[in-house]
Amino acid sequence: MKSSPFAPSSVPLLPPIQGVRFATAEAGIRYKNRTDLLLGLFDTGTVAAGVLTQSKTCSAPVLHCRANLASGGALARALVVNSGNANAFTGKRGAEAVEITVAAAVGATGATAHSVYVASTGVIGEPLDPAKFTGLFPDLAKAAKADVFEAAARAIMTTDTYPKLATRTARIGSVGVTINGFCKGAGMIAPDMATMLCFMFTDAAIAQPALQQLVARHSATTFNCMTIDGDTSTSDTCLLFATGTASARGQPPILAVADPSLDGFSAALGDLMRDLAIQVAKDGEGLSKFVTFQVSGAESFEAARKIGLSCANSPILKAAIAGQDPNWGRVVMAVGKSGEAADRDRLAIAFGPHQVAASGERAAGYDEAVVAGYMKGREIVIAIDVGIGTGAATVWTCDLTHDYISINADYRS
Amino acid sequence: MKSSPFAPSSVPLLPPIQGVRFATAEAGIRYKNRTDLLLGLFDTGTVAAGVLTQSKTCSAPVLHCRANLASGGALARALVVNSGNANAFTGKRGAEAVEITVAAAVGATGATAHSVYVASTGVIGEPLDPAKFTGLFPDLAKAAKADVFEAAARAIMTTDTYPKLATRTARIGSVGVTINGFCKGAGMIAPDMATMLCFMFTDAAIAQPALQQLVARHSATTFNCMTIDGDTSTSDTCLLFATGTASARGQPPILAVADPSLDGFSAALGDLMRDLAIQVAKDGEGLSKFVTFQVSGAESFEAARKIGLSCANSPILKAAIAGQDPNWGRVVMAVGKSGEAADRDRLAIAFGPHQVAASGERAAGYDEAVVAGYMKGREIVIAIDVGIGTGAATVWTCDLTHDYISINADYRS
Repeated sequence: MKSSPFAPSSVPLLPPIQGVRFATAEAGIRYKNRTDLLLGLFDTGTVAAGVLTQSKTCSAPVLHCRANLASGGALARALVVNSGNANAFTGKRGAEAVEITVAAAVGATGATAHSVYVASTGVIGEPLDPAKFTGLFPDLAKAAKADVFEAAARAIMTTDTYPKLATRTARIGSVGVTINGFCKGAGMIAPDMATMLCFMFTDAAIAQPALQQLVARHSATTFNCMTIDGDTSTSDTCLLFATGTASARGQPPILAVADPSLDGFSAALGDLMRDLAIQVAKDGEGLSKFVTFQVSGAESFEAARKIGLSCANSPILKAAIAGQDPNWGRVVMAVGKSGEAADRDRLAIAFGPHQVAASGERAAGYDEAVVAGYMKGREIVIAIDVGIGTGAATVWTCDLTHDYISINADYRS
Repeated sequence: MKSSPFAPSSVPLLPPIQGVRFATAEAGIRYKNRTDLLLGLFDTGTVAAGVLTQSKTCSAPVLHCRANLASGGALARALVVNSGNANAFTGKRGAEAVEITVAAAVGATGATAHSVYVASTGVIGEPLDPAKFTGLFPDLAKAAKADVFEAAARAIMTTDTYPKLATRTARIGSVGVTINGFCKGAGMIAPDMATMLCFMFTDAAIAQPALQQLVARHSATTFNCMTIDGDTSTSDTCLLFATGTASARGQPPILAVADPSLDGFSAALGDLMRDLAIQVAKDGEGLSKFVTFQVSGAESFEAARKIGLSCANSPILKAAIAGQDPNWGRVVMAVGKSGEAADRDRLAIAFGPHQVAASGERAAGYDEAVVAGYMKGREIVIAIDVGIGTGAATVWTCDLTHDYISINADYRS
């Protein structure tokens, strides 16, 4: 498969986070000659927060993580992720595969069952045989290291053409803390509470309820404002693990999300999640262009987001963008079909710096040749003001190309 | 452009309907060497019923038709349709273009302004210059004939690869009546109350409110259960014109939709609308396969329809179908993302005669090679039972192919 034109020439180097270690292996679950199994280990005292897919056909691992997060304290000691098989729509056997995986991780790491988080990604509907990889856990647990984030990110890839990593720092009081994250996803991406798989790690000491509120808040404006094909996965999982090890360096533990000393951390977390969401959109299956919809003038953030997603999920608009056609009439169509309030006679649209429509019709001085020139660029920004209120949202996506069709017509063959 | 593989070798011959005449012309609005203008004329006494797009950015002609339908009695004397330009998002000039068109039709036909229906289809956002065609109205009015339905259907095509026509007969009392219809549409098709453009004609004498209820009722299970790309047009217009001329042949006029003597007519109308909706799906831009989703076991008809549309609008599932891949895991995904109630552990899926999933997991005896063979066919039926209730719906669509991308990347160039 061809690499995304946005594949970075080098990926960010993530610093170690005290209390977090990883090991990876080639388990041969589906892929050959690449890693497809990740074991993450967390020191005692780590808590997890996260959001999971709202799909009605969610996978067995998603149900397990949801139960873990709801259990007292949401303690976390281990994370197991496999790629190649989603263990979704696998009935009782799917739940059993999770149980077997968790039991093996408990045996190899000393964690309790409720502190082992599991995620699977790949083909839906094929039974996952945990015997293919549970025997590897004891060696992985011994081999786990702190400075292998890139290897961890690579082990969870499916149709991704590059690993997606990001790191940020923040201060809580006078103590510096780190947030690292990596994620995967390139197709079947329209997160409905989280992206397909995203794992984040921090040494900050923050009470679990506050951590949970931060993840949910930032998901709304990052992963939930990103789409590749409008297809919501059965396996979306976004987890943040906080070891709290910064408290040993003097970080005053944070108990409530409203604590102002959390502001810097919250901003850094939001920025990291936005970075990862954009990295996913920039690896959209078969893409040639990265597209940003900046919607303003809507009734609310939610309305603006819905209008942005209506554009970002429109096959006919995305195919026009792939064809470098400034077909802004299709933006009008997508705004109209969103169902959200828009004043047709105040609607304004710009492609990059070029105003193409204003006051409900083609802008005076519109020059199609100029805008067509803009469309040859690799990054397209489309600004839409719907003329109703002050709600605004930014939505990221990619174009719809021949390569998307090729990739998805052949995924399993 | 390549013809749809479902293009019929011959189109149905529609009989004349007393009180209905048509003429067409090459106005050169956008296309060359083909007709792009249709004038329909109706005898005094004709009433119209119809449904129009719910798009918030609907076109000027849609607003005009909506006002006509709401005016006293919904009388109809003329219909003007142009292809090549949708007169959508054209601001005040768009409304003026409709006014000029209507005034010219009034002058040429003697109709009143509220009895002239207008529809436009083609590019969005470019001003429509009615001077290109209003001068043709007097000659068209003189030339209009009753037996030219196919010519009428051809004049309204855009990216359609064949004209779409259907005819049915019914008895009201002992009197035979006829219903003819034609429609267009191949892309930007996800009707939200009606398909892009559909015109139907009958000699039956039925009171306008009853006619309106019939059209709305049957739209829900025909055009509104059909999608090509999930993109709802700014111009969807579905109108039924009833001349009432059958009353001269002894048809007892029907006043109420509950009148049992209307049952045969209602069934024939529903059948005709289903026929036309399927003809649209079978001409979906770039399609190689026609796909039917039969959803059952849902909470309600609306829930079943939403689940069917969630499947029928899933790019990743439709690309798999184009690739002849029986990737039923993507059906599971699309059911899950619909948001409607589904019992994951009772979900059952069949591809044609082959059960692929039952009781929430892969069916015992599933043989991928056999189902892959089925996927080589041109017509694919996917049955889904979500195990909750008794709601059922059938949704029609087509696959998502390289040709869809090519057509929509180049539409305006």
